[in-house]
Amino acid sequence: MVTASICTIGDELLIGQVVDTNSSMIAVQLNKIGVKVNSMVTCGDNSKDMLNYIEQCLKTTDVVLVTGGLGPTKDDITKNILGKLSGSKKDVRNKEQYDIIEKILTARGVQMLEINKLQACVPETCTVIPNKVGTAPIMQFSFPKSKYGRKNLLFSMPGVPFETERALPDIIASIKEHYQLDDIFHKTICTAGIPESALAMKIEKWEDALPENLHLAYLPDPIMGVRLRLSIYGTTQKEGEEELKKYSASLSEILGDAIFSFDDEAPYEVLGKILLKKRATISTAESCTGGFLAHLITSVPGASRYFYGSVISYDNSIKMGILGVGKKILDTYGAVSEQCVREMAEGVKKKLKTSYSIATSGIAGPGGGTKEKPLGTLWIAVSGPNGTVTTTKTFKNTRAVNIKRFASSALDFFRLCMQRELI
Amino acid sequence: MVTASICTIGDELLIGQVVDTNSSMIAVQLNKIGVKVNSMVTCGDNSKDMLNYIEQCLKTTDVVLVTGGLGPTKDDITKNILGKLSGSKKDVRNKEQYDIIEKILTARGVQMLEINKLQACVPETCTVIPNKVGTAPIMQFSFPKSKYGRKNLLFSMPGVPFETERALPDIIASIKEHYQLDDIFHKTICTAGIPESALAMKIEKWEDALPENLHLAYLPDPIMGVRLRLSIYGTTQKEGEEELKKYSASLSEILGDAIFSFDDEAPYEVLGKILLKKRATISTAESCTGGFLAHLITSVPGASRYFYGSVISYDNSIKMGILGVGKKILDTYGAVSEQCVREMAEGVKKKLKTSYSIATSGIAGPGGGTKEKPLGTLWIAVSGPNGTVTTTKTFKNTRAVNIKRFASSALDFFRLCMQRELI
Repeated sequence: MVTASICTIGDELLIGQVVDTNSSMIAVQLNKIGVKVNSMVTCGDNSKDMLNYIEQCLKTTDVVLVTGGLGPTKDDITKNILGKLSGSKKDVRNKEQYDIIEKILTARGVQMLEINKLQACVPETCTVIPNKVGTAPIMQFSFPKSKYGRKNLLFSMPGVPFETERALPDIIASIKEHYQLDDIFHKTICTAGIPESALAMKIEKWEDALPENLHLAYLPDPIMGVRLRLSIYGTTQKEGEEELKKYSASLSEILGDAIFSFDDEAPYEVLGKILLKKRATISTAESCTGGFLAHLITSVPGASRYFYGSVISYDNSIKMGILGVGKKILDTYGAVSEQCVREMAEGVKKKLKTSYSIATSGIAGPGGGTKEKPLGTLWIAVSGPNGTVTTTKTFKNTRAVNIKRFASSALDFFRLCMQRELI
Repeated sequence: MVTASICTIGDELLIGQVVDTNSSMIAVQLNKIGVKVNSMVTCGDNSKDMLNYIEQCLKTTDVVLVTGGLGPTKDDITKNILGKLSGSKKDVRNKEQYDIIEKILTARGVQMLEINKLQACVPETCTVIPNKVGTAPIMQFSFPKSKYGRKNLLFSMPGVPFETERALPDIIASIKEHYQLDDIFHKTICTAGIPESALAMKIEKWEDALPENLHLAYLPDPIMGVRLRLSIYGTTQKEGEEELKKYSASLSEILGDAIFSFDDEAPYEVLGKILLKKRATISTAESCTGGFLAHLITSVPGASRYFYGSVISYDNSIKMGILGVGKKILDTYGAVSEQCVREMAEGVKKKLKTSYSIATSGIAGPGGGTKEKPLGTLWIAVSGPNGTVTTTKTFKNTRAVNIKRFASSALDFFRLCMQRELI
């Protein structure tokens, strides 16, 4: 199996100012094409450490991906180090990147300075992959087996996550060209409502019976649910896809409608699809989720085609005044109750004139809650032309995570009720 | 200067399933006490790589912090490796951790199995720092100078971020005990409304004139603004605090009310403080921010004391029907206009009966916008007993980042108008 290591460079990472998201982004892409990441290293902008770590990566893995340290200022020294490592005698200007730099600076209304021009100059030993969205070029170096004991490929790319992301497809293509990779195909099955450990128990037998060339990964997330990624190695595309389909189908038999997508989609994207298909509209009435549910729905471009709006009724006066929840309901059952979310959902649907609605009320914490309604309690109601359905759940997380899980559960409950034609 | 390295262990990191947030969290804490992080390494759950990397860390830095690989299952091998490294002949049971494990499992209603009991067993060579929030104990190992060329301290802690976070204060205290650290004091000054590069230019002279023992770090974030962290070394606490105060004051003269806090606070925390002090209430009317503004406000525990609610009027029918925006305003100026946000802010304040209100309308993208109202345009209105004030800004980010910046700008505009007594 072809192996890789990822080397991120920058003092801002070492002081904890910036969380390194590049490494996992790169790892996901490498993993997809069947390249195994053996290690990730972060070091500062000093030549001794960089040389040390990069050489170690070259000795232990086939592909080395370096991000960062490519800025125009003198504290960015990656290019020099890589020039030295690869035995470059001089830098040469790359015309394509030079033109891009000129274009970017012109668009910004900034004059091209000497330091900007220098960014287009690279060690003669490298092949340039032009960086279309930034000034620093992506550099590719090859090392023969005689140098570090293996046929190495090293890529150096900018550390700005957006630029790294845009550079990856070209780098992945180049890795595919240079190495004989095992074919690998994936399918992501998105589940909701079952915690990771319970899910693992539920599908244990199915998982144990998977053939050797089929690998399963659990990807849990408070908003996205638990995604199951099935990967198959060593088959043709046609065969691989058929196998993945077969195993997805048998998984579907076990998990039923806990599966909300066989494509890699977020629950709020699925909601959008359902509504667009029905040419229907939706509104939300939120208490404990405080706007986060509406935020998830509106994070999808074009959500305005089906999302009309929301009433966030943090204070009970809003629940009564705008959503029309009865004072008696609040006095008798409280805001965190089936009766209250039901009236919230029906109230917002009527008031905002939408086909469907979702309402949430709960106790996000910290603190609060009683024996009957413990901290982490959530009530959800979903309403549509065929009526209103409610459910309750309890979570045991921090306030921030509870809010995420509350919103995600509400989205999934809506999806379920639509699928089962309950509303 | 005492140096450190951070070693995170886990296959889930190498396949990119999980973003490593532990390293930066640990780095921030070490940095605060004047310990310099030289490198961060991630490797998988295999003994050869782990031994290799941990020994390298011990050779090159004084303190080594290892997270992960401490679970009860057999693929978690950190404890064995560290036992071997430190020359432990046998494992011993730590009573304190054993009792904690028992308590945690009982609370979960789970029976204590042999593998759970084993978690309380640690190499005889280590000192245990009890993990009060999880089953795996924190282990501290000391290595004499004769072993790796320096007086080493190694800490092993669980990889679950919540448990890592809770373990850090004890670890930091132990490091302070074992090493003669330079005294270091910090002050974080929170700014809003000025991009990082413009801010750097604005305070360039001030920054250049800082004495050698004062260090400045820029911490930019779409929601938090640009925080400036001033750190002073080699003084007494009294002297240090006085110096930090002096330089904060001179910075304040340059930046004026672009500074929203001299404590390390988020803009939505500042909003809460302002309102609590005034015993006032607030509501929001959101279009482009789609609930994210309300989400930020309600992410603060106890926000219900001042936040009444929000009307998210994604569709113009809601702007007219609930917020009372005139049809003529929408027809003449459009939803993304000064006139519209003004009516939104006044409408929501009246409807939700709050002392203050904030309204947003803009074009988050992707796509959309005209020459007059380009993609990224935001209109904000804030309203209070003394009237309504509006402003406009333009951002050039992705939809997700635009939404964050929109909400953060609205919070800051409210803070500014309150400070200047404009509303």
